[in-house]
Amino acid sequence: MRPALDPTLYLVTDTALAGARGVPDIVRAAVAGGVTAVQVRDKTASRRELYALTLAVREVLAGTSGVALFVNDAVDVALLAGADGVHIGQDDLPPAEVRALLGPDRLLGLSAGSDAEMAATLALPPGTVDVVGVGPVWSTPTKPDAGTGLGPEGVAALAAQARAAGLSTVAIGGIDAARAAAVTGVDGVCVVSAICAAPDPGAAARALRSALGTAAVR
Amino acid sequence: MRPALDPTLYLVTDTALAGARGVPDIVRAAVAGGVTAVQVRDKTASRRELYALTLAVREVLAGTSGVALFVNDAVDVALLAGADGVHIGQDDLPPAEVRALLGPDRLLGLSAGSDAEMAATLALPPGTVDVVGVGPVWSTPTKPDAGTGLGPEGVAALAAQARAAGLSTVAIGGIDAARAAAVTGVDGVCVVSAICAAPDPGAAARALRSALGTAAVR
Repeated sequence: MRPALDPTLYLVTDTALAGARGVPDIVRAAVAGGVTAVQVRDKTASRRELYALTLAVREVLAGTSGVALFVNDAVDVALLAGADGVHIGQDDLPPAEVRALLGPDRLLGLSAGSDAEMAATLALPPGTVDVVGVGPVWSTPTKPDAGTGLGPEGVAALAAQARAAGLSTVAIGGIDAARAAAVTGVDGVCVVSAICAAPDPGAAARALRSALGTAAVR
Repeated sequence: MRPALDPTLYLVTDTALAGARGVPDIVRAAVAGGVTAVQVRDKTASRRELYALTLAVREVLAGTSGVALFVNDAVDVALLAGADGVHIGQDDLPPAEVRALLGPDRLLGLSAGSDAEMAATLALPPGTVDVVGVGPVWSTPTKPDAGTGLGPEGVAALAAQARAAGLSTVAIGGIDAARAAAVTGVDGVCVVSAICAAPDPGAAARALRSALGTAAVR
């Protein structure tokens, strides 16, 4: 059985932004502040470093109730570290192959930022993907290659296709507490710098939760 | 059962050195010239690109008799692409964990370039590692971070420890046809640029095989 996923406030980690404070401590504070899912992402780490980082974050999450842990891209690391799932982008291993490696009991997230990418996502066999990351909502300095933003309306239109197919959706790209309320039509929002670069990650998470309100589906 | 491995002349691919000729065509020519094992290595490729490249090389090797195919570092790609094994370095996922993911029926290679690294390798549970890459013999432009060379005597001394434990050994680092005869005490030699950068990769492989002679163990 796949782990439960509450995508309301989904933190994607950034080792460089975390700096000396370290990713695990930021995750601890952010979860205390209301983060509901965590993805460990570090495109520059060696696989051994990513494995160690994932284990450290998993340890932080062990005391929480149902905060799902994803690993970006590295299926082998996710399997070894006992993560709840993997998140892949369009340049990573193909979704059907990743699902084959993951087996039925882990979550798979996939990024989709255009009608074509969403159509490809929805053409996958049912049960391949669990959650679709839609964006960027706005252009973002943490992912300069992600292109200009789709805007909240563009994201909501793409997300509607995924939700009609029964998939969870999260919006990503340039979201912070001031902008979060403008993001609608998704099951949750992803943030990177709004928490990882915040002076107080716990307070930043609380501010985001407050801005998002209490609706289970936005 | 693990695939057979003939490590006599072990090619490690380099996409940049291959250039427009492409890695698969170089592998084809090299195997025709006498290469006995191939490792797909591309540290800059996305996982999707590495997967596609590995499938292409696997297709080339399908018509050969027992040329083992390794993937560098990416266990997930190796599993998906149906490779015979994985080769890892000291900064990659830990060997015991990689073996757990690979299962018993694939080959695992590990790099060791010092007494400490060899001691750690030999301390692993039997059956974890199949082949040890020992080097660099000489310093090499294709791996500038690999340090100064151990020299043929240093490599032979390290390899002797692995061979006493029943592991296969290959020497790596700066080996070409002119230098190959100086490398002794190992079961085979690895080359990168001596084939990938050669104007005629097939002729380069033949020259290497000729220089290595016919001894099964050097």
